[in-house]
Amino acid sequence: MISKKMKASLEKSSVIREMFEEGNRLAKIHGAENVFDYSIGNPNVKPPEMVKTAIKEILDEEDPNFVHGYMSNSGYVDVREAIAQNLNKKHDLNLTFKNIAMSVGAGGGLIVVFKTILDPGDEVITFAPYFGPYRAYIDDCQSILVTAQSHPGTFEPDLATLEAAITPKTKALIINNPNNPTGVVYKEETIKGIAALLTRKSEEFGHTIYIVSDDPYREIVYDNIKVPYMLNYYTNTFAVYSYSKSLSLPGERIGYIAFLPEIEEAEEIEQCLSNATRNMGFTNAPSLFQRVIIKCLNETVEVDVYKRNRDLLYNHLLSLGFESAKPEGAFYLFVKSLIEDDKAFVAAAKKYNILIVPGSTFGCPGYFRASYCISYEKIEKSLEAWTKLANEFIK
Amino acid sequence: MISKKMKASLEKSSVIREMFEEGNRLAKIHGAENVFDYSIGNPNVKPPEMVKTAIKEILDEEDPNFVHGYMSNSGYVDVREAIAQNLNKKHDLNLTFKNIAMSVGAGGGLIVVFKTILDPGDEVITFAPYFGPYRAYIDDCQSILVTAQSHPGTFEPDLATLEAAITPKTKALIINNPNNPTGVVYKEETIKGIAALLTRKSEEFGHTIYIVSDDPYREIVYDNIKVPYMLNYYTNTFAVYSYSKSLSLPGERIGYIAFLPEIEEAEEIEQCLSNATRNMGFTNAPSLFQRVIIKCLNETVEVDVYKRNRDLLYNHLLSLGFESAKPEGAFYLFVKSLIEDDKAFVAAAKKYNILIVPGSTFGCPGYFRASYCISYEKIEKSLEAWTKLANEFIK
Repeated sequence: MISKKMKASLEKSSVIREMFEEGNRLAKIHGAENVFDYSIGNPNVKPPEMVKTAIKEILDEEDPNFVHGYMSNSGYVDVREAIAQNLNKKHDLNLTFKNIAMSVGAGGGLIVVFKTILDPGDEVITFAPYFGPYRAYIDDCQSILVTAQSHPGTFEPDLATLEAAITPKTKALIINNPNNPTGVVYKEETIKGIAALLTRKSEEFGHTIYIVSDDPYREIVYDNIKVPYMLNYYTNTFAVYSYSKSLSLPGERIGYIAFLPEIEEAEEIEQCLSNATRNMGFTNAPSLFQRVIIKCLNETVEVDVYKRNRDLLYNHLLSLGFESAKPEGAFYLFVKSLIEDDKAFVAAAKKYNILIVPGSTFGCPGYFRASYCISYEKIEKSLEAWTKLANEFIK
Repeated sequence: MISKKMKASLEKSSVIREMFEEGNRLAKIHGAENVFDYSIGNPNVKPPEMVKTAIKEILDEEDPNFVHGYMSNSGYVDVREAIAQNLNKKHDLNLTFKNIAMSVGAGGGLIVVFKTILDPGDEVITFAPYFGPYRAYIDDCQSILVTAQSHPGTFEPDLATLEAAITPKTKALIINNPNNPTGVVYKEETIKGIAALLTRKSEEFGHTIYIVSDDPYREIVYDNIKVPYMLNYYTNTFAVYSYSKSLSLPGERIGYIAFLPEIEEAEEIEQCLSNATRNMGFTNAPSLFQRVIIKCLNETVEVDVYKRNRDLLYNHLLSLGFESAKPEGAFYLFVKSLIEDDKAFVAAAKKYNILIVPGSTFGCPGYFRASYCISYEKIEKSLEAWTKLANEFIK
């Protein structure tokens, strides 16, 4: 007999599963080239050539039992130190290897952080719309995910709703910047406002409210926009990173958790992240890719490819009468549905072979997410389908 | 403020952490070549050459966005199908890809299985001595780890203690065969006895008691001994495997969960394993190594290297008066301590630069574990130190 919690999760998961199967069904009928799959955030830009070169160098030059072997649960010390120095240079910090714990992607990093700080009944706030799996991670800690709101239109965090959501049980705030699903990059002013509010509330309640900054899209930004790095603004921050997007390696599950030497209980935090990595069955972040990272610290995929995609899709949708904040980062458009019922709209889009995700999946009904990390040619080919979809609703 | 559970885990973890630091301290004083580190199970036998060849072929021939990209949470369908067919051939089964879920090593596979089947308050039994992290995995499901006993001397499971440990709350039994820390391979007769007992008890209580078979050492066996494969003996089994030992890839975190098409609620199980992989932050097993596995299905490290190590260390220890079951697999010796207090004995061993793990870490005080996955030359060099250690206690 499967667990009760799992039984419940089965029902929830079926929406996305059905979409996935629908995609396969449509591809069989119309041909894969005629199905416009905007549903998943699977990067289409190639990893930098250096990734391949690095792997081959490591295989040819290093001891395989070292490269593929166990190391400390938090990762190889030299890799952690190299990441720390790289962050120090980029963000004017004073980190050492002790402040970096390698993780199984950002997902693995997030759950390890939550296991480290959360007791049952604790509350964690995030701004809607938000990345769905947060709820599962928090649930698994018997803690409660509470949502604050973003300003409709700009999707900047609404600090008044944040303040209203904070209670004596609030243990952490999750920030995802650049944001999935909106593609919005939060302004420095907003980040400073959040930091000031949490500092005040931490003092008021006599305990730390952490910021957990989920940063996988940090390098996926356009027009040289600067993303405020949370470690520069708030001491009790866990900055969780993944190379999934910056190096197009989402399947490899390689990332890290960074925190300041000045974080509360720094030494215990270091040890807890290590213990949680072991106790949650990760054991360690994949070893070969840890060693690849040390050789690819200054590499990033060609972000302009995504920018070109954004411009094509965004401009077309706006010309059709759709409303959306113009994304400055990530590779998602979060668009107002042409009818209130976003699930019905997503179903309508399927008729034109367009696969998109309803906003309600992100705690924000009335919208849909389109992931434009697909080929430019595919987007071009889809424009007519988008026009037909819009015409069905805009008279 | 870190979580209360984590605070508690900090105290527990300090024993192993101290040993690790002690090893570094000793290496600095006496030189690393004079420290005999029998503490960790980090394979010293090289991965098969095919691993390196496979990685290079994949990098040169396959689309990098496919190789390093997201796939379904349970893994690439072709990899799962190839593993299923390989198991069918080896063990005369009828598995398909639906019966295989790729996992982040055996650790990741185990916690995904436990999340799938356990409700808070459920009990999971294992035989002492047992692999320490089981307790953390079960704890994290708010379930309870209950120990049955092994027969002292042979370390075969004691079925009378198993029967006594079963209650209406028993949800699963963990079997680890070949066994860490004893190196013992359970006899077919024992496996049949366990299967019959659990079948009877499942009927008595009106609910399934699962077997979770933790199999990372399945191929690390000597003298062509046959390890009974649990899927051949008990329908409601999860067989959790890792390539950590058979391909010497422990750092890469690549393994899988296998189950029979006839398992209770098979379809839901398939979906739950996928959901749990996502919900626990793994997302998927590392992608490149999934693709490596499909090319290395019939590869195994040179097991004879371990056998030679076993013979050297086992024979020497027995000649000194130590008592131990002769391991037929894995790469561990589980030896009776020369004094009752195993922690004191382990401390005494340190004086001779011998690092071993106290049996109490495995729920079995009065013993110690020596991992002989180190170089033959190092073992040879350590023999004199073992003699001195024995002489301190055997007059």
